Amino acid sequence: MKVEDYPHRHPVATRWADNDVYGHVNNVEYYAWFDTAINAYLIGEGGLDIRAGDTIGLCVESHCEFRAPVTFPETVAVGLRVGKLGHSSVRYELAIFRAGVAAPAAQGWFVHVFVRRDDRRPTPIPDGLRTALARLLPAE
Amino acid sequence: MKVEDYPHRHPVATRWADNDVYGHVNNVEYYAWFDTAINAYLIGEGGLDIRAGDTIGLCVESHCEFRAPVTFPETVAVGLRVGKLGHSSVRYELAIFRAGVAAPAAQGWFVHVFVRRDDRRPTPIPDGLRTALARLLPAE
Amino acid sequence: MKVEDYPHRHPVATRWADNDVYGHVNNVEYYAWFDTAINAYLIGEGGLDIRAGDTIGLCVESHCEFRAPVTFPETVAVGLRVGKLGHSSVRYELAIFRAGVAAPAAQGWFVHVFVRRDDRRPTPIPDGLRTALARLLPAE
Amino acid sequence: MKVEDYPHRHPVATRWADNDVYGHVNNVEYYAWFDTAINAYLIGEGGLDIRAGDTIGLCVESHCEFRAPVTFPETVAVGLRVGKLGHSSVRYELAIFRAGVAAPAAQGWFVHVFVRRDDRRPTPIPDGLRTALARLLPAE
Repeated sequence: MKVEDYPHRHPVATRWADNDVYGHVNNVEYYAWFDTAINAYLIGEGGLDIRAGDTIGLCVESHCEFRAPVTFPETVAVGLRVGKLGHSSVRYELAIFRAGVAAPAAQGWFVHVFVRRDDRRPTPIPDGLRTALARLLPAE
Repeated sequence: MKVEDYPHRHPVATRWADNDVYGHVNNVEYYAWFDTAINAYLIGEGGLDIRAGDTIGLCVESHCEFRAPVTFPETVAVGLRVGKLGHSSVRYELAIFRAGVAAPAAQGWFVHVFVRRDDRRPTPIPDGLRTALARLLPAE
Repeated sequence: MKVEDYPHRHPVATRWADNDVYGHVNNVEYYAWFDTAINAYLIGEGGLDIRAGDTIGLCVESHCEFRAPVTFPETVAVGLRVGKLGHSSVRYELAIFRAGVAAPAAQGWFVHVFVRRDDRRPTPIPDGLRTALARLLPAE
Repeated sequence: MKVEDYPHRHPVATRWADNDVYGHVNNVEYYAWFDTAINAYLIGEGGLDIRAGDTIGLCVESHCEFRAPVTFPETVAVGLRVGKLGHSSVRYELAIFRAGVAAPAAQGWFVHVFVRRDDRRPTPIPDGLRTALARLLPAE
């Protein structure tokens, strides 16, 4: 995968606390960056209202392969695309790209199920979110 | 999977900051708990020296399925076992158990490759660590 | 200050990610432990309902002096007492104690203003919380 | 204080996990941003080598007043200046500014003591760091 394979890219500047005792960013932070890129997109492009909306997205599964270290300070790009857009769930495919490096430092995926905020039961993806997500499907 | 399927259990008390805006622990924290349970075991039982040892463990892949919410304050058990113990790598299988609930709130896995600290090249798992890890293999 | 000067003590087990690149717990985490000890006490002893209650506590000021390093893995005690209990605010005094070490590894304070959840305006501390907080005032 | 009072400004994009259950950024994260702004400056402008340098900066005291909420997603500016530059220590003054808002959302300070990495004893601030820090002193 290359950065061009991801129609949306979200920049993330690493933080001091992302580093672990081995002098590179801890593996766990990559998932925090995935979460950030996905939710920033849903809020900005799809109208997700994380504080008061009726529908929220809950992560039910995630995965990451770590291939190269990332350091502090540094700004990476989180590449985001949609692998599968279902009735009430979406599978995102993500990768972390360092500046000037073609191969991703990490590659993973993340599944959101959209639920009603009040009873946390699955609900169809609202139109605004669906339209935004459909734009991240790979072109045929 | 049940808690009895995991020969080692590491307690984790949730923290205020583990909660996200939806009022439950953020999915990312489960990976931080996996990391904590694994490294505490390697240090305490296997002699891993995270500050000065020649050999360190790097995460190359991880995965988690999230099935039920966890809250703050609450103490969960991280169940840990070894699924595959290789020459220089180990695959851990983990699950999060809430008190009094048989089904895991989350289940996942995590792969460490052991490398030399100085050049980050793979190296055989040292004897002390291997002995400690072998104790977490399932009984035949 | 000694641990006996704090009527409430909340244990905190350090986590892998608390460590920074210098091999000890990052200063920022001490504040996260303060937050955790305070809120766990308010929830468990004072009936604070962080998800749906009308009154919530917002931090308006905090402070910490760092005197000795803390490591991973390790369990510390967060000592908690109330320095000043006002109409709608409370000043907590806190310290971090390592096992078997009389002098605190860190010492600080933290001010909560209680507000209405809906408009975030200051509100008198509810009776249940006030009773619980008063128990942490120093004896005369 | 206004943003113009801080000669260096470091942008920080909030992350999903910065939010707490009350729907705004948790107070603790502001300290993480202070740490990030300071260390990014020391590394980029002063030659601090966090992985292998002989001299490192340890936080011995910090403080913050919180005046207005910050949300996700949002990019804030961390204003940084030097209040006092001593022989082996430095006191930073910091503030968090939201886009288009003159009054800081938070204001605080942070004291670094520079120590030798090997024995953690105080050491004079190296010339490169001192020169970089002196540029952040207020003009007379």
